Amino acid sequence: MPVKRDTYTPDSLLKVAVEVFIERGYDGTSMEHLSQAAGISKSSIYHHVRGKEELLRRAINRALSGLFGVLDEPRAREGRAIDRLEHVTRRTVEVLMAELPYVTLLLRVRGNTDTERWAMARRREFDHRVSELLKRAVADGDLRGDVEVRLATRLLFGMINSIVEWYRPSRAGRAGAATSDEVAEAVVRVAFSGLRN
Amino acid sequence: MPVKRDTYTPDSLLKVAVEVFIERGYDGTSMEHLSQAAGISKSSIYHHVRGKEELLRRAINRALSGLFGVLDEPRAREGRAIDRLEHVTRRTVEVLMAELPYVTLLLRVRGNTDTERWAMARRREFDHRVSELLKRAVADGDLRGDVEVRLATRLLFGMINSIVEWYRPSRAGRAGAATSDEVAEAVVRVAFSGLRN
Repeated sequence: MPVKRDTYTPDSLLKVAVEVFIERGYDGTSMEHLSQAAGISKSSIYHHVRGKEELLRRAINRALSGLFGVLDEPRAREGRAIDRLEHVTRRTVEVLMAELPYVTLLLRVRGNTDTERWAMARRREFDHRVSELLKRAVADGDLRGDVEVRLATRLLFGMINSIVEWYRPSRAGRAGAATSDEVAEAVVRVAFSGLRN
Repeated sequence: MPVKRDTYTPDSLLKVAVEVFIERGYDGTSMEHLSQAAGISKSSIYHHVRGKEELLRRAINRALSGLFGVLDEPRAREGRAIDRLEHVTRRTVEVLMAELPYVTLLLRVRGNTDTERWAMARRREFDHRVSELLKRAVADGDLRGDVEVRLATRLLFGMINSIVEWYRPSRAGRAGAATSDEVAEAVVRVAFSGLRN
C-alpha cells in the first residue's frame, strides 16, 4: 500500500480511526491497522496522538458532547417534563444521525480499558438523566404509570439507538430514504403516541 | 486447562459454542477457542460436528425456528391484522427472551460466510412478514398512516431487539427484575399505545 504524505488534521485522522474501530472493534484494532487505513506511518500517527486510546477518547468525547449538549438546551431544561422529554428524544435522534460513527462507537464500547469504562459510565449517566425526566412526567400524570420507568427508558433508548443499525448517511437524499427530521419525528410519534391510530 | 471427558450432547456443546461466538464474534472464533471453552479436544468436537459453521447453522436454526414458529401460531394467522401484529410482537419478545443467546447471535452475524448470509436473509424475511402485517393494519385504519411502514417496522424491531442488550436471565426472579411476561406486555403497550397517558 503506498504511503501518502501526512496531510491529516486531528479531525480527519479521527474520522479514519473511528471507521476502523467500528469495523474491527476497538480491542481488535492495532496501531498497524490504523496506519494501513490512514495510509501513513505509525510514527506519523504518533505525531498527532499518543496512541489509539487517545483516539477513542476523542471520538467518545465528540459523541458525548453532542448528547449532553442536548440536555443543556433551553427546551430540555424549561417547561413540563413531558415536553422536555419529547424535545430530548427528538434532538437525541438528530445528534445520533449527525454524529453517526461517533455515537455508534459509543454504543459499542465494552469496558476493557479506563477510557471504555468512562464511556460506559457517561452513557449510563445520560440514560439516567433521561430516565429522571420520564419519572417526573409520570408524576405529572403525563406519561403512563403502568410501565416501570427503568423499563420504559430502556425501550425508548432501544428504539432510538437501533437507528445506528440501519441508517446510512450516504443514502440520505435518495428517493425513499428518510431524512433526519423524518426519523426524529417518527420516533417521537411512535414512542409517545404509539403505532395505533 | 484440564481436558475433561467428552460428555457433551449436541445441545450442550451448542450452548458453549454460542457463548464463545457472542463473546469473540463468529469470525474471531477458532476451533481452538471452542476446544478451550468446552474443555475437550478439537477431535472430540469434530466427533459431534463438521466444524464451527455447522455449530453456527444449528444455533441460527434454533433462533429462526422459534421466531418463524410465532408466525405460524393461530393468533398470528387469523383475525384482524392489528391483533395478529400485537400477538406476533408479544410472542417475539417471549421467544427472544427464552432463546436469548441464539437470538442474540442471529442479530449479530454479519455475512462473511454462506451460513451468515443465509441467517441475514431469513432475518430479513421475518422482518418483511411482520412489515406486511403492519401494512395491512394501516390499510384497515387500525395503525397510524403518518409513519412510513418500513420505518415503523424498523422502530418496532429496534425496541424488541434491544432487549438482548440488557436482559440477563440470571437476574430473572430477583427483586426489581422484569419477567418475560412483563417485558412483553411493556413492549406491546409502548409500541402500540405509546408512553403518553
